[in-house]
Amino acid sequence: MTMDAISVIRTKRDRERLSDEQIDWVIDAYTRGEVADEQMSALAMAIFLNGMDRAEIARWTAAMINSGERMDFSTLPRTTADKHSTGGVGDKITLPLAPLVAACGAAVPQLSGRGLGHTGGTLDKLESIPGWRADISNEEMMRALTDVGAVICAPGSGLAPADKKLYALRDVTSTVDCIPLIASSIMSKKIAEGTGSLVLDVKVGSGAFMKEIEKARELAETMVGLGRDHGLHTVALLTDMSTPLGLTAGNALEVRESVEVLAGGGPADVIELTLALAREMLDAAGLKDADPAKALADGSAMDAWRRMIAAQGGDPGAALPVARETHVVMAPSTGVLTRLDALGVGVAAWRLGAGRARKEDVVQMGAGIEMHAKPGDVVTAGRPLLTLHTDTPERFEYALESLTGAYDIAAPGTEFTASPIVLDRIA
Amino acid sequence: MTMDAISVIRTKRDRERLSDEQIDWVIDAYTRGEVADEQMSALAMAIFLNGMDRAEIARWTAAMINSGERMDFSTLPRTTADKHSTGGVGDKITLPLAPLVAACGAAVPQLSGRGLGHTGGTLDKLESIPGWRADISNEEMMRALTDVGAVICAPGSGLAPADKKLYALRDVTSTVDCIPLIASSIMSKKIAEGTGSLVLDVKVGSGAFMKEIEKARELAETMVGLGRDHGLHTVALLTDMSTPLGLTAGNALEVRESVEVLAGGGPADVIELTLALAREMLDAAGLKDADPAKALADGSAMDAWRRMIAAQGGDPGAALPVARETHVVMAPSTGVLTRLDALGVGVAAWRLGAGRARKEDVVQMGAGIEMHAKPGDVVTAGRPLLTLHTDTPERFEYALESLTGAYDIAAPGTEFTASPIVLDRIA
Repeated sequence: MTMDAISVIRTKRDRERLSDEQIDWVIDAYTRGEVADEQMSALAMAIFLNGMDRAEIARWTAAMINSGERMDFSTLPRTTADKHSTGGVGDKITLPLAPLVAACGAAVPQLSGRGLGHTGGTLDKLESIPGWRADISNEEMMRALTDVGAVICAPGSGLAPADKKLYALRDVTSTVDCIPLIASSIMSKKIAEGTGSLVLDVKVGSGAFMKEIEKARELAETMVGLGRDHGLHTVALLTDMSTPLGLTAGNALEVRESVEVLAGGGPADVIELTLALAREMLDAAGLKDADPAKALADGSAMDAWRRMIAAQGGDPGAALPVARETHVVMAPSTGVLTRLDALGVGVAAWRLGAGRARKEDVVQMGAGIEMHAKPGDVVTAGRPLLTLHTDTPERFEYALESLTGAYDIAAPGTEFTASPIVLDRIA
Repeated sequence: MTMDAISVIRTKRDRERLSDEQIDWVIDAYTRGEVADEQMSALAMAIFLNGMDRAEIARWTAAMINSGERMDFSTLPRTTADKHSTGGVGDKITLPLAPLVAACGAAVPQLSGRGLGHTGGTLDKLESIPGWRADISNEEMMRALTDVGAVICAPGSGLAPADKKLYALRDVTSTVDCIPLIASSIMSKKIAEGTGSLVLDVKVGSGAFMKEIEKARELAETMVGLGRDHGLHTVALLTDMSTPLGLTAGNALEVRESVEVLAGGGPADVIELTLALAREMLDAAGLKDADPAKALADGSAMDAWRRMIAAQGGDPGAALPVARETHVVMAPSTGVLTRLDALGVGVAAWRLGAGRARKEDVVQMGAGIEMHAKPGDVVTAGRPLLTLHTDTPERFEYALESLTGAYDIAAPGTEFTASPIVLDRIA
């Protein structure tokens, strides 16, 4: 049977199922450049609007895995466990989590990405550490996993190249927020990576791709199912992203906060989520007796962090970059902070220079936002609520715009019940 | 207000109206190359699936007109009248029609296209005449309209360049059969061309883009409305395309049949539709007393044809190309031919080499199909029903496949009522 892009697009345009042969052909032909970007973007929009069923998503994912090489960690002395977050504001969890899980005996092969839009990227954050390199060879990766037990790096170009091309395309064609395409993108990379188990942190709320819990649950169930289809033990936690995680959003600011957590301090929500994800990863890796809280307390997680950073050329003791200018937002009234919106803070941090508008933009390592209170805290009129950091002070005004209406302060004594961080678990 | 392609795509993806500013910006930026093909194809698919309302279509059309130059025929000594067909099988009507209307006193500035898929292209047909050139300058066009009163040529590159780019893109992304995009494409070219009046031949049936009369009526009403909005007097006829027009489908074969009509002969359906369209064009041009039937009979239309062809370098007396090989399909039984499917015949002619699969393909001038009977005719078992022509006889089998089930022969004496050619008129 001869295949052509026009008929594959037409099939999905006309709300029909893509056959296995059509999916295999279009992913392979797109990877080879035979199907053009403008054809794949039309198909992506048709998928966005008309959907794919579970079987189509499974085949699409398999085809993306087969577009490139697969890694193999079976020769490692430790069991591998990975986690993936769908992205949120202030989500620095990977930074303390990877060395913590390594300190407890598993190996964490964490292939990460860069930030785009208002959510930060793990690699951008780590690059604020002087000397640290995201791009390492497969051999360096295996050595770090053997010696340290944790590595956070950019995926090699051979891993799911179809996804790499498609991801860049979706980004410029408004076809990102689509469950079949998100699920297949994440899972193709993780399955090709060859991790032994996977814990997904699916964010829900204003600062996440998924604003509603039903959508987040559907995404989580789709991904857990894809993992199961491919023999990858996968668990998902649905976690709150209505307010930023921790008290910082921005690259170097978040590294500093992560190191505080590894040193036994840090904000309660970051510690809680780090431990919840660590327990899931250790359970999945068969290390049910490991005690991550102890590893945070006794310094073994911090020790793994230092070795992990040093293994990729970074100096864990070096001073972190600091932005040239700051602007402090004072609390306009005294009372209880009842809301601090993740999207507003995320967009403000992005506008200050912590994130990119285009892939080729350079991020400011010191830019971002420090929060001096979290929902439930008491604030005082005229005292600092937020500190904005940037190297380019002309951006303050633009950043402040996105903070308008981003927080609510209720009368002193108002009751406030914090929502839990972990909203649900899907396995 | 700053604009970007991603937010324009998102607007239509999310089933919202595009604002005037968004439409003006995206068409202009696409013409300039600032909006990429992959972004425009995602937008085209979103428009295909989510539609545009009349006001959006009107603005989109205006923006495509404004993307380039506009022609001006107001200095001509004759009133201009143009026609456009949405395309069908054996639709050679433009060939006898343009010189016929010119012979009756109007000027016909017929900017035409090439065939793609199973419907033929007027320029391809005329190029089977030795020496004839489709690409002429605006000056040559004005001279031909003054001297002869009719010209059939390729549109200059300055006319609605946004449409030219978008048309090529739609063709490879399965976003052709969409009323807002078809209507705006046709009408932007015709309005930019500057004709004084326009008659649309909107085809309905298996061999047309529009299979159902309701869809064809919607397309016709949309285009008539767009013409009215721009002060262009526009009339549409809905005409039958369930069976091919005339007894030939293929480039040189159709020129031969057109010349027969101009000589006072030819198939009844081609004569009927040519005269119906001529009367509409002459009425619209204010030439209500003209008698096109007389101009066919007295040779004045043939005279205009010869001068029109010669004005573009063609030799109207030269022998036309003939395909190297023929294959005759015999009637399998004796009886009344009750159906001869336009799509089956069109695809067969295309497969024989009369049309293109890709824009860069070369068409065979002699390839195509001769029909020896039309629905309602009596056929005899073992006598010729169709003759297939091609230079590449290995294509016969592939062409014959599309003729399987393409005709029905009923028992001798079966009553047959032919459907009318003109199904409706919209003004």
